[in-house]
Parts: sequence; C-alpha cells; structure tokens
Amino acid sequence: MSQDVSSEGDLRNTGMSLKHDREWDYELDRIVEAVEERGATKVGLQFPEGLKRRGPAVADDLRALTDDDVTYMLSGQPCYGACDLDTYLMRRTDVFVHFGHSPMKESDKIIYVPLFSNVDPFPMMEDALDELPEDDVGLVTTAQHMNRFDEMKEWLEDEGYNVHTRKGDDRLTHEGQVLGCNYASADIDADQVLYVGGGKFHPLGLAMEHPDKKVVIADPVNNVVTVADTEKFMKQRYGAVHRAMDAEKWGVIFCTKIGQGRWDMAEEIVNDNDDTYLITMDEVTPDRLRNFDMDAFVNTGCPRITTDDGPQFHKPMLTPGEYRIAVGDEPLDSLSFDTFHGTW
Amino acid sequence: MSQDVSSEGDLRNTGMSLKHDREWDYELDRIVEAVEERGATKVGLQFPEGLKRRGPAVADDLRALTDDDVTYMLSGQPCYGACDLDTYLMRRTDVFVHFGHSPMKESDKIIYVPLFSNVDPFPMMEDALDELPEDDVGLVTTAQHMNRFDEMKEWLEDEGYNVHTRKGDDRLTHEGQVLGCNYASADIDADQVLYVGGGKFHPLGLAMEHPDKKVVIADPVNNVVTVADTEKFMKQRYGAVHRAMDAEKWGVIFCTKIGQGRWDMAEEIVNDNDDTYLITMDEVTPDRLRNFDMDAFVNTGCPRITTDDGPQFHKPMLTPGEYRIAVGDEPLDSLSFDTFHGTW
Repeated sequence: MSQDVSSEGDLRNTGMSLKHDREWDYELDRIVEAVEERGATKVGLQFPEGLKRRGPAVADDLRALTDDDVTYMLSGQPCYGACDLDTYLMRRTDVFVHFGHSPMKESDKIIYVPLFSNVDPFPMMEDALDELPEDDVGLVTTAQHMNRFDEMKEWLEDEGYNVHTRKGDDRLTHEGQVLGCNYASADIDADQVLYVGGGKFHPLGLAMEHPDKKVVIADPVNNVVTVADTEKFMKQRYGAVHRAMDAEKWGVIFCTKIGQGRWDMAEEIVNDNDDTYLITMDEVTPDRLRNFDMDAFVNTGCPRITTDDGPQFHKPMLTPGEYRIAVGDEPLDSLSFDTFHGTW
Repeated sequence: MSQDVSSEGDLRNTGMSLKHDREWDYELDRIVEAVEERGATKVGLQFPEGLKRRGPAVADDLRALTDDDVTYMLSGQPCYGACDLDTYLMRRTDVFVHFGHSPMKESDKIIYVPLFSNVDPFPMMEDALDELPEDDVGLVTTAQHMNRFDEMKEWLEDEGYNVHTRKGDDRLTHEGQVLGCNYASADIDADQVLYVGGGKFHPLGLAMEHPDKKVVIADPVNNVVTVADTEKFMKQRYGAVHRAMDAEKWGVIFCTKIGQGRWDMAEEIVNDNDDTYLITMDEVTPDRLRNFDMDAFVNTGCPRITTDDGPQFHKPMLTPGEYRIAVGDEPLDSLSFDTFHGTW
C-alpha cells in the first residue's frame, strides 16, 4: 500500500482535512422509521461536543422527512461519551437519538447512531510495523473506526502477525473497542498492542492500564505513529498524590451522570474517613469545586477528568486509588490507572 | 439613629465586614428533628454559591448531632435561587435541605432554611429618605432581609410615610419580597419604591419592570444609597436586539431547571419560525452554546442570565420579548423586562 504522508501535522488524506467536506451517515432513515413507528411528537437529538454544530442541519433534514407536528430538541448538555447520556431529554422525548458513541446499554427509547470515520487507517498501520517486531500483536481501536476493525485485523494477518483481539467487558459494545475509561479489550496474550485511532487520550490510558505491554499508536487522523510514553503522565500523578498528602479536608465527588456513578466506592471512602465530605454533581469542573473549602478532592466519576483536566483544578484531584496512597492505606508503588467496569 | 459610614466601599458595620465572624442560624435543630422523625439515612444539603464553603462545617455539626449511619451529601451543582433546586439529590435523599432561599413551592421532603442577614438596614434607610420626597412609598426587599421587613415598615411609618406593600404572586413567599425574576410585590399604588438590599441586581430589574416608578436603593451590605438607573441597561438590551436582527439561525433555549422551564413559550417560538432550533440544557453558559452554529439565541430560562451575563456569550442572547422585536413581530418600543410567574 503506497503512502506519501508521514510527518505529524500533515493533514492530507486524513480525517482532519476531510472534516469539512465529508458526509457523515446520520442514518436518517432509521430515525424517521422509529419516529413514524412510535407516532413520536417529541424527538431528542444528542451530539458529542465536536459534532454539535451539525445538529441544526440534521434537525432540518429530519423536519423535512417527518410530519409537521414533530418537535426536534437538541441537547445542550456537554457530551463526551456514551456515559454522558442526557437522561432529562431522554425521559421527556418519544424517541431519543444519541450520535457518535456506541451503546453502553441498550434501551427501547434510544437510537444510537455510531458516525464512523471514513479516514483510511492503513498508511499509518504500515508505518507502525517498524515498532511491532514480535509475531503476536493485540489490536484495539475506538468507536469511530470500528466499522473497519475486521479489515484491520485481516491486514495485520496478511502482514504475518498472530492478531489477538477480545471484546472486553460489558461496558464495551464491540470486539477490540476501547473507551477512555476501559481497556479490557487489551487483556490479550501479546506483549505489544497496536492502537488505531486519533489522539493520545486512549492509548495513554491503555499503556497505564497495561504497563507490561508496548503500546504503538497508529493515528490516521493526525497522520503519525508513536509509542505511548507514560513517564510524564506518571510524574504528574505522583505530583498530585504528594501535594494531597497533607490534606486535612477531602471532597469526595460522586458524579450523578448515568454512566459515571460509583456510589459504593464514594460511600466507602466517606465512611472510613471523618475528614471527607461527599459532594454530588453532574459536570465536574474547576469552577464548581472552587467554592468548596477543601484541601484535595477524590473523583469517583470519569477518570479522564481527574487525569486530563487535573492540573486545571485549584486543589489536587485524585482517583480513588491515588487517594488510598495519599492517606497511607496503600503503598506509593500501587499507583495505577483508574478504569470503569459495568454499565448503568 | 447615628451613623458614621456613608461612602461606597466602606464595609465597617456591614454584612461584608461581618461575613467572617458572624454566625448564621442554620437551624440545625429543625434539620436533626426531621432526620430523626423520618429515620433518614441520606441527607442532602444545598447551599447557594456564596455559602458553599460553609457546607463542610454544617455537615460536621450535623454528623455530631445524628446517628453514625446518616450520610450527608453536599450538592455541587451551581445554585443561584430557589428555582435552582438540585432535584437529582432531592430525589435520592430522605431529607433535603435548601439553604438561603425562601420556598418557591413547599414539599414534604424539603426543608428550607432562610439564612437571614444580621446587617442593620436602618442607617442606609435613613440616608435614603432624601430621595423619597413623596408621602407614599412602596417597600420591597430580598429573602435574606425578610426577617426585619415588619420593622422596616414600622420605621418608615414612624418617619411619616404611607407605606405600600403586597405579597406579589405565588412565586413569592413573603409580603414585600422580590426575586431577580419577579417584582410583582412592587405593583403598588405609589410612584416611589424603596428597595432595601445588597447590590443592583434586583433593583435594576424592578426599575425596568416598573419604569413609571422611582426606585431608591438602600444597600446596607455595601453601605450606599443610589437611585436605579436603567439607561445603560436599556442601551445594552437595544444593542443586543439590533445585533440579532440579521440572524438567520436562532437557538431557542429551554432551561430544564425545575423552576425555570417555560415550555409553552419555547414551543410557540419554534412552531412559528422555521429558522429556530430548540436547545435544552440546565446551566446556560457561554461554553455550552459556543458549539452550536447559531447566529443568535433566545433564552426562555432565567432572564438574569440573558441580561446580566449576555455580553459574555459569543452571539446575541435575547429574552423572548426581545426576540419578538428582533424578528419584527413587535415594535422596538415594546422592550420590557422579562419576568417569571408561577412556580414549578
């Protein structure tokens, strides 16, 4: 397979450069069918942040295809994953469409429209081969590249690899799929894993969760191949743990989003430590925590908020495991990546 | 009554300077009684933004007064009024305490603790007399000064005034009370109204809602007397209306907060105009709207977000009445203040 792009930032032939011309498949027929079948008069549409601006055009198309008495409502709630379902809008509409994520749990009411990327993954996969010297390789990707997963697997097999894949646990819909908070699909019998997808968000979590494996990133969106490096990440996390060790008052965050609540975990921390205070909220943001007079926070909600947005909070923000280290319940070297299992 | 402070910004003898020593009455006895009576094991505590940092100490006191098996949960949701009830936490707790606002609607589950200010209103009221030359005067104040409303009224009567007060509509709990979105208590038969309370937030709305009346502000928190001036405010609103007149795509915001939903109003706008798109959300923030590709917004939720935070949004944000002007349904001079009536 020929390729003429390899430098980081070159967006020719990538998802980024195509972004403004390409047509996503919003599966309007499937939505219209559901609206008609159920005689719906209220329809909710939820898009992830990066696709919210497509919402009005999708609503226009649906209006043209359905009766005049159908009202379309766009969710204005922030949305970063299938765990971020707008339950308010879902409960108050006859049909609720969630775009861009695979189902975390099925429901009669909800239509999940996956929105697959049309970027070609193979040029970057070919570049990645140099970093994958062994015979056995694991293969994982994200929801938006799932439509080509079988092709990717075959391609690697044609290159002579023994390709290991698995479905992971019930939080995941597809074989080989990873989420920002779940890498169970990489629990495979190989010392090297190829991650195909955009950004370093997922592969860094993967490398943290599987520190014994080499994680190679074939990024067809930014046209670059790299190897996940957890050192900087680990330093940041140890820094946060150390800064939290002197904390006298801890805020323990219980996230009320349907896919992010770990109540037992939050309750256990609060029951064991009198210096903790349970704080409930949906969006966990620096602004919302600034008004609480706490020395440190433990976030039982989305671990990516803790690790990726952590430095933006005015006080140290730890995962539940990191909290155990900071209060002396666990040794420093027990530090690991916080993952989510199960659905809602 | 003697007074030695009168310049703006001098915080001696005011609520601001007292803030760090004064003890609020959190009515712990009433809360403990409810917890015991209902055998509650989960208790939710919701404070307005400015008092959130008091939450942990209040939780500590309650923990000491109740059984070990009671879990206290602090709401981390933004809270600016009784309309901002954290319904998620309310539904999942046995007793739910809302501090700092008077009830918009009573419920068995909810305990409202008003948190009255202990600042002395009379020095500023005395200063305000120069601005109140007529015999008849209306008197209004906010929830945190309601405990001294009768005293204020008597004081004015002793000064020789014919004092007019009324309860307003069912959104208001007390005689003479105003909310940021409701000034029905100032619908009285007097051409001048004395507002006693902190800030210009409420009196400006009052002056807009009652343009025929002179609104005098006796502010015992910032120690200043002023007369509400709506000119700057009106200019800002007309500016927003003009900028929105060319809009081709309108986002119509339906706020999902329990006390802020005006569904019929939102639906009517959307049904009448094909260039509108219904967007649902709880917190209406500039960040959340930036991802929508709209030319202007109409906010059917809290009017104070529209008018006070309006300039922070990337596109013009109008009240429903202002929208009618911008699209040509109503004349320019119909511009008025957007108020809320009824409860949830």
